[in-house]
Amino acid sequence: MFNLWREQKIFHCLAGWRDELYPIFGKDHKPLLVIERAGGGLLGIRHFGVHINGYVRDKDENGKPIIKMWIAKRALTKQTFPDMYDNIVAGGLPVGQTPIECAIRECMEEAYFPPEIAKRVVPVGAVTYTFYNFDGIKPENQYLYDLELSKDDLPKINDGEVQSFNLWDFDKITEVLKNHEFCPTAGLIVIEFMIRHGIITPNNEKDYLDIISSFHNDIGFPGPAHC
Amino acid sequence: MFNLWREQKIFHCLAGWRDELYPIFGKDHKPLLVIERAGGGLLGIRHFGVHINGYVRDKDENGKPIIKMWIAKRALTKQTFPDMYDNIVAGGLPVGQTPIECAIRECMEEAYFPPEIAKRVVPVGAVTYTFYNFDGIKPENQYLYDLELSKDDLPKINDGEVQSFNLWDFDKITEVLKNHEFCPTAGLIVIEFMIRHGIITPNNEKDYLDIISSFHNDIGFPGPAHC
Repeated sequence: MFNLWREQKIFHCLAGWRDELYPIFGKDHKPLLVIERAGGGLLGIRHFGVHINGYVRDKDENGKPIIKMWIAKRALTKQTFPDMYDNIVAGGLPVGQTPIECAIRECMEEAYFPPEIAKRVVPVGAVTYTFYNFDGIKPENQYLYDLELSKDDLPKINDGEVQSFNLWDFDKITEVLKNHEFCPTAGLIVIEFMIRHGIITPNNEKDYLDIISSFHNDIGFPGPAHC
Repeated sequence: MFNLWREQKIFHCLAGWRDELYPIFGKDHKPLLVIERAGGGLLGIRHFGVHINGYVRDKDENGKPIIKMWIAKRALTKQTFPDMYDNIVAGGLPVGQTPIECAIRECMEEAYFPPEIAKRVVPVGAVTYTFYNFDGIKPENQYLYDLELSKDDLPKINDGEVQSFNLWDFDKITEVLKNHEFCPTAGLIVIEFMIRHGIITPNNEKDYLDIISSFHNDIGFPGPAHC
């Protein structure tokens, strides 16, 4: 069906055919069928991905401990959200890979981190949201990993999906967030990181509780199990 | 109204009158009115509290880094969930206090931690769930704080709400969780901590995504702002 629609150029999204299969899960958490990723939004199926928060513990000019975060700038050639800021490493979860396998693979592909660094990722939860545009509706789950990096663990541009990496404090990151320069998913995930690490608090954000609920909605269709 | 019902002994919950006021919030996050805490479930109003995860970084017998958590055993005389396990420090959020003020006060009252320890709490998010029993319906938000303790930062029984404190690894905590020996809120909050610290992962828990969504529901009525 997608092949026919693609030939007939009925849906814009199918022009971006990726040759990458996405699963639809049954109640037992097992895949019922797989479909081409580019058409997922047409069916409103759940999408799954992995995002890695690469951060460095440092001190400010007064010697107070602070956290800085590595932020990638997406390549100008990216199909979605070119030239916008993103997490250091992120990717869609393909059929047959567990989130941690995907995280370690993407660490190498996107930031040239070898497995001895990538294996230090810590699973810290997940976010859920529903994304929609003219390509369809995408309820998305992102599995989240924190990766503490030393000052010597430098990301390197590897696969051409990134144009630069920037190590920023959260004053700078907040400014970029407010300017809407993050791609939407990464912006949300950076906010989640800031909540989990005590940077956004009940004392500085009046919508604290609403923000937390807003990116943890129950999607209502079954998802995968990885064990 | 609550006073009349209390005299007439119409509702069981009003026998446990606490002389503690709980607010109902308007859309601007400001309190519209306050009511006696014991009757909150009759109106289904949002309840707010603070829970502190007191934890210690240690090593197992092979030298591998592990986290242990301080778990309180509630006093036999507690009105709710006597003799069950709980977080090291927890309490309802009274009118006029911010979550951090409440956290620091409860640290002293429940675990005899002085402000220099209590002030190290880090806000790490919140959980939401709806609790119901024969006393009514309670949509609850708990503001969560992590408190890293050294081996010398020992909690002490202070106000008689706790009968013992136990520093346990997560094998022991998981066993106690499975035996339903935690009071419900603390059980849920311990699970949230285990997810956030990479102890429960997508690779060892098949309902990972569903669990995360389940305790972050949007309640749908306004809550407070603390700034």
